[in-house]
Amino acid sequence: MAVAELTIDLGALCANWRALSSLSQLDTGAVVKADAYGLGLAQVAPVLAQAGARQFFVAACEEGSALRDILGSGPEIFVFSGHMEGDTDLIRNAKLTPLLNSIDQMLRHVEALPGHSFGLQLDTGMNRLGMEDAEWRALRDIALAQRPALVMSHLACADTPAHPMNRHQLQNFVDMTDEIDAPRSLAATGGILLGEEYHFDLTRPGIGLYGGLPYTDARSVATLSVPVIQTRDVMPGETVGYSNTWTADKPTRVATIAAGYADGIIRAIGKDAWLWAGDVRCKVLGRVSMDMIAVDVTDLDEEPLALDLLNSRQGVDSVADWAGTIGYEILTNLGGRYKRRYLPA
Amino acid sequence: MAVAELTIDLGALCANWRALSSLSQLDTGAVVKADAYGLGLAQVAPVLAQAGARQFFVAACEEGSALRDILGSGPEIFVFSGHMEGDTDLIRNAKLTPLLNSIDQMLRHVEALPGHSFGLQLDTGMNRLGMEDAEWRALRDIALAQRPALVMSHLACADTPAHPMNRHQLQNFVDMTDEIDAPRSLAATGGILLGEEYHFDLTRPGIGLYGGLPYTDARSVATLSVPVIQTRDVMPGETVGYSNTWTADKPTRVATIAAGYADGIIRAIGKDAWLWAGDVRCKVLGRVSMDMIAVDVTDLDEEPLALDLLNSRQGVDSVADWAGTIGYEILTNLGGRYKRRYLPA
Repeated sequence: MAVAELTIDLGALCANWRALSSLSQLDTGAVVKADAYGLGLAQVAPVLAQAGARQFFVAACEEGSALRDILGSGPEIFVFSGHMEGDTDLIRNAKLTPLLNSIDQMLRHVEALPGHSFGLQLDTGMNRLGMEDAEWRALRDIALAQRPALVMSHLACADTPAHPMNRHQLQNFVDMTDEIDAPRSLAATGGILLGEEYHFDLTRPGIGLYGGLPYTDARSVATLSVPVIQTRDVMPGETVGYSNTWTADKPTRVATIAAGYADGIIRAIGKDAWLWAGDVRCKVLGRVSMDMIAVDVTDLDEEPLALDLLNSRQGVDSVADWAGTIGYEILTNLGGRYKRRYLPA
Repeated sequence: MAVAELTIDLGALCANWRALSSLSQLDTGAVVKADAYGLGLAQVAPVLAQAGARQFFVAACEEGSALRDILGSGPEIFVFSGHMEGDTDLIRNAKLTPLLNSIDQMLRHVEALPGHSFGLQLDTGMNRLGMEDAEWRALRDIALAQRPALVMSHLACADTPAHPMNRHQLQNFVDMTDEIDAPRSLAATGGILLGEEYHFDLTRPGIGLYGGLPYTDARSVATLSVPVIQTRDVMPGETVGYSNTWTADKPTRVATIAAGYADGIIRAIGKDAWLWAGDVRCKVLGRVSMDMIAVDVTDLDEEPLALDLLNSRQGVDSVADWAGTIGYEILTNLGGRYKRRYLPA
């Protein structure tokens, strides 16, 4: 078997949800867009529902429709991209709640689906999605009269607690929503950790559930073990891999393992990356190939059968650091070829 | 609809196969590992078979088994990772031809499946997969007596024609295989372009089929069009996106489009990337989010409905350059959320 094994600990995932939930007083939802951050919507969503999540968030109506099939009726499914052209049937049939982000979307929604549930998305400074102050002031009374299920915004810098943008957006959100009746939400994982002021009626953790920063207390959820195809001895002066980027300066035992950038192991990690054989750290040599990576296993006493890229010692944020990116990207790129194994919640 | 549309031109793909095939005299196979480089094994493999490919190459037996279901009996399916522990049933049932890369694999194969087809993989200097000279000399006569379907090796630096490694590996391959009867293969796309000496009995193009370098004459195969969720005016001094990394220095019209790094648009492209609205190039602003990207659409006369990341003007290698990677990684990371449309061959 030349495919790596990705083990997803649903128990750890639920523990992360409960821990994040315990940090706020009111409702705690769950963000499960992008196939539950790459870990599998069909497995992740039901255990979060069982743990107590009643509000789920996805990016697109297509995702929402798939989620409704998984969860059945009951939980509320919010869609960040709102009600776009072509979405009406999905929203109606799957009972989705679009988070409307413009007057255009508001008009489209009430015309196409009068009386159907919706939320409102406000821009408090990120300039990405949501109504801006002027638009909101024009629409506010009409929109609120239709009883939105949620009024929300999103923080641009919540991963950096000291960033002045956090307080600036909080103040804008309060100014825009202070006297409304509808439930309000501002905080994803980073916002939850900023403290109670940011929590409002509903928090919506994402990355923290899946074991990523900024939630430093998260339990590790994903383990990735990659089988060894072959080992060989490389002599000083010999090169390994594409473009001869690594040259041995001493006799080196090299293992070729069966995963590469086609499995979402970002090619840029190469120069600084390590894998683990039990307690021993083994360095990546040369370039990451499409389906293979060469690793220095000289220090091991035995030929390894597999090496770990993700485990309790080395999480998605370590791998992300080597590639100059964030743990979110490592998770959402986890590959389609892995054999996936789920540990029960 | 907030999902991007990925259009795959199977006609262009077949034209690329025919053009690469016409560059050598004997057989031309096709590398379809990693879900046909991200473009869809189930759609790509049958049209290549129809175009005339009779030898297909995959990375793992699991891929080979899926490919056999798609192609039916007839075409030969070679597996680069060879015969690994646990592979025997897949190899037998799907009639796969493992490319054995060590004495261990050779022993495993002849013990488990005596008489079953196999190929041999030699290491000619890349130090990644395949038997080295000493191993090969020990095994050669026994192995050849069992009539391997193919004897092959892989070039480490074929994308750089002037690299001395190419000639070094060619010489090693000739030295290791000069008087054998079995069919031989050394060249993938880069090797095909190095010229006739590198072609032997079978070439096995991969990236060139899919429109990527080093095959500069390739026809573009993938087009990616991303819908606009919302547009807004941003004033000088305002910031856009995560961590406030982009600040407007003049009034700017910003479109938020519905794709991000969870769709395989590498987060590192952000700073230098562009999208297209017809003939007009539009700059990416700030960070690529998980499901969204902000784009400067100030220069457009109309509100765009969608913007193109991949089209005939801008291929996978342009996008790769912005991220400091190669077109292969852009292709193999094309996301699972895209609506895929196939233009017939």
